[in-house]
Amino acid sequence: MILTVTPNPALDLTWNVDRLHPGETHRVATGAVRAGGKGLNVARVLHAVGEDVHALTTTGGASGAELAADVDRSGIPATLIPVAGATRRSIAVVDDEDGSATVLNEHGAALSGDEATRLLDAFERLGGTSEVVAVSGSLPPGLAADDVAGVIARLRSRGIPVVADLGGAGMLAAARAGASVLKPNREELAAATGDADPLTGARRLIALGAQIVVASLGHEGLLAVTADEVVRARLPRVLKGNATGAGDAAVAAIALALAEGARSGSSVPDLSGLARRATAWSASAVLMPLAGDLHPDHVALADEVLIDDPESE
Amino acid sequence: MILTVTPNPALDLTWNVDRLHPGETHRVATGAVRAGGKGLNVARVLHAVGEDVHALTTTGGASGAELAADVDRSGIPATLIPVAGATRRSIAVVDDEDGSATVLNEHGAALSGDEATRLLDAFERLGGTSEVVAVSGSLPPGLAADDVAGVIARLRSRGIPVVADLGGAGMLAAARAGASVLKPNREELAAATGDADPLTGARRLIALGAQIVVASLGHEGLLAVTADEVVRARLPRVLKGNATGAGDAAVAAIALALAEGARSGSSVPDLSGLARRATAWSASAVLMPLAGDLHPDHVALADEVLIDDPESE
Repeated sequence: MILTVTPNPALDLTWNVDRLHPGETHRVATGAVRAGGKGLNVARVLHAVGEDVHALTTTGGASGAELAADVDRSGIPATLIPVAGATRRSIAVVDDEDGSATVLNEHGAALSGDEATRLLDAFERLGGTSEVVAVSGSLPPGLAADDVAGVIARLRSRGIPVVADLGGAGMLAAARAGASVLKPNREELAAATGDADPLTGARRLIALGAQIVVASLGHEGLLAVTADEVVRARLPRVLKGNATGAGDAAVAAIALALAEGARSGSSVPDLSGLARRATAWSASAVLMPLAGDLHPDHVALADEVLIDDPESE
Repeated sequence: MILTVTPNPALDLTWNVDRLHPGETHRVATGAVRAGGKGLNVARVLHAVGEDVHALTTTGGASGAELAADVDRSGIPATLIPVAGATRRSIAVVDDEDGSATVLNEHGAALSGDEATRLLDAFERLGGTSEVVAVSGSLPPGLAADDVAGVIARLRSRGIPVVADLGGAGMLAAARAGASVLKPNREELAAATGDADPLTGARRLIALGAQIVVASLGHEGLLAVTADEVVRARLPRVLKGNATGAGDAAVAAIALALAEGARSGSSVPDLSGLARRATAWSASAVLMPLAGDLHPDHVALADEVLIDDPESE
């Protein structure tokens, strides 16, 4: 089983307009409501390819009840920790003429000390019986990066691979905790390490303790870095679509690569294979309108991925 | 008791942004969630001034549950007819820099034949024990304007005053049904009667059967018209604020004027007094950020209202 952890979920509400006219009134069809948050997107992708996945997150208030109902509809097994604060909402208004999305992300409500403890306990308990754990997204107020890192360190000491896609302080803490893979994008990597060059930034995170850093670079593909190997993976063509969820699809691919490695008894994943699949899945997510969905072409796209060593140029 | 009827309610969701940048991502505070729809706004205003009011509307789905919870919080006694379709949502994104609101109004789900019958039956039953009935807003698909007008006609034949603030076909049908007061705005009046001049348009509705037409004209105040009287009411100054809900506050003032008339045994309301209070309440609503709220200055504002006869100029 692969466990996905979403400390700061969101109820995603999406409306489409023919053309967005700021300051005006629009008649629209009923908006789409979906359980969101990076970890839930990872779980959707893994569930869609038939993997045994379990989603851990929190739910609160009326928006949390809607999130729970959508998780239930999705068929993904889940543990939902009840919290007092309402689950935040993420609002997207998609302009059908130019495809642009205007997004409003609510701040997450703070977790109480008890709620944070219950979430961390479930993270450690469920993680302890998993092949791989992926923890994704921002941390809500009240959930300390060091406490999340503590769980990661204890899971790692028990030999359980952990993929972390956390922003800011969470990423650095996860690196120090010895996370198996970190998956920052270019901006997150630069913000956390203070280094604009992705390769230099990735090596800083490895120096802190991370085993692998996979930096997603948008159209330029991704860079997979270990202490002694660097691989660049990219598609030879640019795919147009919705980039939201592309990083989550990459995390799903990475988690699956780690799970397959564990199943085959290999302790060191094949970095090129991991990078190839992460690139293909990320691109396949771009082709789909909603985050968490994977285009069926992901298998064919993997064959198109170009792999090279950026330091050999 | 004053009954308000909201055939096509909406769950109002409002978010504030410092400045709206189309196509970009914004971090926002938790949005406000409120039971909306014109009739519910009328009920809020009457409840706020201490009137005995009862709200009739429908609720369906998760958004309907949120609407019901907010009605419950408001303390307004209500009859909520359960329907299968989810209550529509109305989304407002308010730009705090220029005060403009970008609004998305979902279409209402269609009522089934049974649901329409249950709503109409409750309208007639509750209306039959009310001092005054106010029916406001659009009609959802599945609810025929003629059926609504049938209830209005039967209530009128029993001597119960009915205020109707309905769009399009609903307004014409309510006029033919002999509604006590119609409250169109300038655009609604022009669209329904085909006449750009509000006084001519109002007289067309009176010719159809309405007793009083109160046309709200924005900054120009309002025009109250009967078969043999015309009154113009306006404030000598322009108030800045949120015009959403101003018309609903006017309807509340009109409903209260009719109720007071009924209580005093008078069958003909004082047109100037009615127009004065409707103007003051409408202006007081403009001063408040949310529809359905009335600024406490409404009493003082009523003294400022200028009353004249537009035909004497």
